[in-house]
Amino acid sequence: MWNGGQPTIVSIAERAGVSIASVSRVLNGQGARRDTVERVRRAAAELGYVPNAVARSLKDGRTRQLTFAMPDIGNPVYVAMVRAIQSVTKAAGYRLLLHSTDAVAEDELAVLRSLGDRTSDGLILCPIRITGAHIDALTHAAGPVVVIGSLPDGVPVDSVRADSVAGAALAVAHLHETGRRRIAFLGGPRDTVPGHNRDLGYRTALAARGLPYDERLVVHTDFGIDSGSAAAERLLPAGPDAIFCANDQLALGAAHALLARGLRVPGDVAVAGMDNSTLAQASWPPLTSVDLGSSERGRHAAELLLDRLEDRAVHGAFPEPRTTTAPPRLVVRASTAPATDP
Amino acid sequence: MWNGGQPTIVSIAERAGVSIASVSRVLNGQGARRDTVERVRRAAAELGYVPNAVARSLKDGRTRQLTFAMPDIGNPVYVAMVRAIQSVTKAAGYRLLLHSTDAVAEDELAVLRSLGDRTSDGLILCPIRITGAHIDALTHAAGPVVVIGSLPDGVPVDSVRADSVAGAALAVAHLHETGRRRIAFLGGPRDTVPGHNRDLGYRTALAARGLPYDERLVVHTDFGIDSGSAAAERLLPAGPDAIFCANDQLALGAAHALLARGLRVPGDVAVAGMDNSTLAQASWPPLTSVDLGSSERGRHAAELLLDRLEDRAVHGAFPEPRTTTAPPRLVVRASTAPATDP
Repeated sequence: MWNGGQPTIVSIAERAGVSIASVSRVLNGQGARRDTVERVRRAAAELGYVPNAVARSLKDGRTRQLTFAMPDIGNPVYVAMVRAIQSVTKAAGYRLLLHSTDAVAEDELAVLRSLGDRTSDGLILCPIRITGAHIDALTHAAGPVVVIGSLPDGVPVDSVRADSVAGAALAVAHLHETGRRRIAFLGGPRDTVPGHNRDLGYRTALAARGLPYDERLVVHTDFGIDSGSAAAERLLPAGPDAIFCANDQLALGAAHALLARGLRVPGDVAVAGMDNSTLAQASWPPLTSVDLGSSERGRHAAELLLDRLEDRAVHGAFPEPRTTTAPPRLVVRASTAPATDP
Repeated sequence: MWNGGQPTIVSIAERAGVSIASVSRVLNGQGARRDTVERVRRAAAELGYVPNAVARSLKDGRTRQLTFAMPDIGNPVYVAMVRAIQSVTKAAGYRLLLHSTDAVAEDELAVLRSLGDRTSDGLILCPIRITGAHIDALTHAAGPVVVIGSLPDGVPVDSVRADSVAGAALAVAHLHETGRRRIAFLGGPRDTVPGHNRDLGYRTALAARGLPYDERLVVHTDFGIDSGSAAAERLLPAGPDAIFCANDQLALGAAHALLARGLRVPGDVAVAGMDNSTLAQASWPPLTSVDLGSSERGRHAAELLLDRLEDRAVHGAFPEPRTTTAPPRLVVRASTAPATDP
């Protein structure tokens, strides 16, 4: 059992039966007799000695660790991002560290500042609110950062965006084409970037289809299953024939609230979500959802970060911040099948 | 934008307009004139200088970071553990780093070895298979480790266990008491600790209720929603009136397969899961599930780890490895409501 110490050059020397100076030479890769090298290596392995990464990092400036900080480990969207990022970084020989920040700005800023600690070579940050303090910290980051999210122009950091405005338009068009005329919107917090953009997408899509905006058909709440159920209850008096939800958690909660009241999904009310997370598949009926490319965004972010790392010595090949946008895609499932009763 | 460098003692001295020696004195907490101290601190802050955690760690032996390594960030059970661990470690002033190992032994062993890197002060490890290499690495860990899982006797590491045998008995007893007589078992991989223990729990519970063990009513597969659907199809020819599943993902998949065939849940076949994860609530109908105390296990593990950290200087107050077991609890929901057709 760990007892407060770790193997040292002294304990390795004792176990190997060689001098401390020999252990030092071997561990530093300097010359030594072959059997001395073997005895030292065996003793080091038996004692669980690990070359100190911190010391290595001070020498060559690399930890071979990267960090991904996301708002909520409980949201399957971020799980999809983790999987995509990890597949890229692992192939490149990096270990991935994760932070779940609960979307608390101070925690996100602490992770950004910790880049200066040199315990990680680079950071992918996925904030849902961008404050002035974020912009300041991103501008002065002590290592390479890629943001998954929409940054204001002029922030000198690579970023990967979703196009939730175009995505919302796909969902509204689909509901309209399958015969729905009273399409409600169950939105997220409007002070978050996704909450704001998805609301904008709903309004833009209604206008594009010539549908009126009716504020009784719109509620905003926190992203979460229970919030979705409660908010759907508040929408029902306005008589929606479809509820478009700003994410799959809200959509799942809304579908449950309808089913619990004895309403049919999609027979009485169609339900669609956004993110096309595993929850959309896990739901019964399975949920139609707008895929905003979580996996693609994760993969792109990892690739942008690796570019920066390979280019670390000079201003180099990518002097300007780069932005890529993952195109949205509608995945139609049973929760929006065409209404059978006209 | 990060350009390959970070603020140094030289750039801080330039910005503050003081000598390099003064910056060194201030940053090392040695004496300096008050306005010099202020100028250096301001310049350091403006440049985004962060005291090097690595250097600090070499000095005082602490990083104020802890690590939790889990098999699968996509399984809500581990999300519940993360939340519980994080609430304890955050309150104690530690940042929590996460690893998703995909239950790959080499990755778990790499995380264990990385304790010697001193980038983290301690580790909570949740493996689903315990190999000889695990036992060896745990025995020689370079820092304090707590395992969430069942360790063989004699491994000198604190651990927190679930009692899945008792948990399985609760589910089988409930299904039996609500009138089911052909209770199938949809199990996980038998070479994993949870897969093995849950299978043992099912057999023990059948015997305790005087029910025969019928191998046509038992299938084993990987833990996962799609695996659950496919495996449920294989069980149907044997005519089960209930399916007890080794986790909620399997139960959700099984319920969907039944509903897709037009069977009623629970009218035709009752379905119960294990872990009482958010999936059990997210399912329609909501799933009866055995709560194995994921949150409690996470909290206990964090508390045991903090005990070790506070006790790091000496062999101290807890010389023997400690084991705690979270008691199981059955949460009954609609998926096992009593059969209405006798």
